[in-house]
Amino acid sequence: METDQPRDPRLDPIGVFDSGIGGLTVAAALKNLLPSETIFYIGDTARVPYGGKSRKTVERYSIEIGGLLLAEQAKIIVVACNTASALAVPRMKELFNVPVQGVIAPGAEAAVRATKNGRIGVIGTRATVASGAYEHAIHALDPKLQVFSDPCPLLVPLIEEGLFDDPITDQVIARYLAPLLAENIDTLVLGCTHYPLARQAIGRAAGEKVTLVDSAENCALAVKSLLESKTLAAPTDHLGKLDVALTDATEGFLRTAERALELEIGDVDLRSVQSA
Amino acid sequence: METDQPRDPRLDPIGVFDSGIGGLTVAAALKNLLPSETIFYIGDTARVPYGGKSRKTVERYSIEIGGLLLAEQAKIIVVACNTASALAVPRMKELFNVPVQGVIAPGAEAAVRATKNGRIGVIGTRATVASGAYEHAIHALDPKLQVFSDPCPLLVPLIEEGLFDDPITDQVIARYLAPLLAENIDTLVLGCTHYPLARQAIGRAAGEKVTLVDSAENCALAVKSLLESKTLAAPTDHLGKLDVALTDATEGFLRTAERALELEIGDVDLRSVQSA
Repeated sequence: METDQPRDPRLDPIGVFDSGIGGLTVAAALKNLLPSETIFYIGDTARVPYGGKSRKTVERYSIEIGGLLLAEQAKIIVVACNTASALAVPRMKELFNVPVQGVIAPGAEAAVRATKNGRIGVIGTRATVASGAYEHAIHALDPKLQVFSDPCPLLVPLIEEGLFDDPITDQVIARYLAPLLAENIDTLVLGCTHYPLARQAIGRAAGEKVTLVDSAENCALAVKSLLESKTLAAPTDHLGKLDVALTDATEGFLRTAERALELEIGDVDLRSVQSA
Repeated sequence: METDQPRDPRLDPIGVFDSGIGGLTVAAALKNLLPSETIFYIGDTARVPYGGKSRKTVERYSIEIGGLLLAEQAKIIVVACNTASALAVPRMKELFNVPVQGVIAPGAEAAVRATKNGRIGVIGTRATVASGAYEHAIHALDPKLQVFSDPCPLLVPLIEEGLFDDPITDQVIARYLAPLLAENIDTLVLGCTHYPLARQAIGRAAGEKVTLVDSAENCALAVKSLLESKTLAAPTDHLGKLDVALTDATEGFLRTAERALELEIGDVDLRSVQSA
């Protein structure tokens, strides 16, 4: 007598990962857009940040975290980290048998839709900017657009310290944006999942004429249509939730982000990422 | 016929490690003080920084890098990272059969010698300050001294960006030092191996009345007497050198530090620290 019901894959979680906690901006966007979905988030806080590391190392770390998400039965893997999206998504798509959605392509599409004068700025980590991933994605859509990129390595530490609204953060942003604004951009891609937390400060520095493109929101829209096209969306009467696991027990910025994003995160699991 | 000569352990290298590149300030101090010694430096750039991570994770990483130094025949292990010194040195001393020298004890001794009013300030990473390691080491020498500590999490990123002499760095330092200066300290321990690179800016903010204690120089002195006491010092006619290995191929800040410290570093080796 067989009593086990076959698992309904639509009820499996959306697996989301980031090098740390910045990807919670993507988790928050997913939760708002898809309240019926269970989201399993892993932050690789034992090895954060990825933004200054090499392609090979970022690829290795990303594949390892992807494996942890598959072990949680993830029906889709969302790479909620621009650096990992820029450097590791192609290889993850080769290796994994579930859909893999990064944040670069949705951000690039939104920027192409937003620009009127054809001049797009991109800010991100050193690794993301060096990869040229946004340029490639934007030029694949429209080779005539001009893209100006600037790495902003100090922004993530400032945001992790909770200095969203602080004169020091304002000065750092003003310095990073100056060369982009001198190029007369009308659209600015926030090419790092931490940056939406400092959206107001970035907006003040960029001025009213520049449209900010938040890859978190656009990534959530891409996940929604991907789930629908694969008939993997959770039934609308299902009650979703957000589970968070970290690879190191450092909760400081997690609670900062929880407050800033108005997320509810309960107990945090730990996951081990490597042999001792 | 036996032609192999027995290895002279005095010619084995001094093994030095840091979470990243900041420990090069210790390597530079060792090189100046002990020009006959071979120094083998490993920077764990694949997992930098350690300063915001948990004790368990920092201990695990430190033991792993210690093993890599033993594989290089290190005659002594110098933990040139305050966070690892604060959290991992006791366990490393249990596990390893060579002397292990951290940076906390030498810095604490120098601070106790330097203070006149008995009020010592300590700046470091969040993990170092939370560990209370400097307080414990200072109070073990003189329980009457008062110690005031302040974590400075933004200083390492600013220094890694090469902003040693920059108004933004000055403002960040002024903010961090304000509560310590309000306590009328006359001695300030630079409790992170990055900080000597911003020594001038820290000195400007602290004022002339405050003596800065650089754990790098004091650590080098401690290594010298430890080697002499174990008859492990290299013969003075031996020509020393500095070899550097990193766990991730990110050389940006390495070259910044090389210039600032006037070090000569040639090719950089890569070492793998974990299973893929």
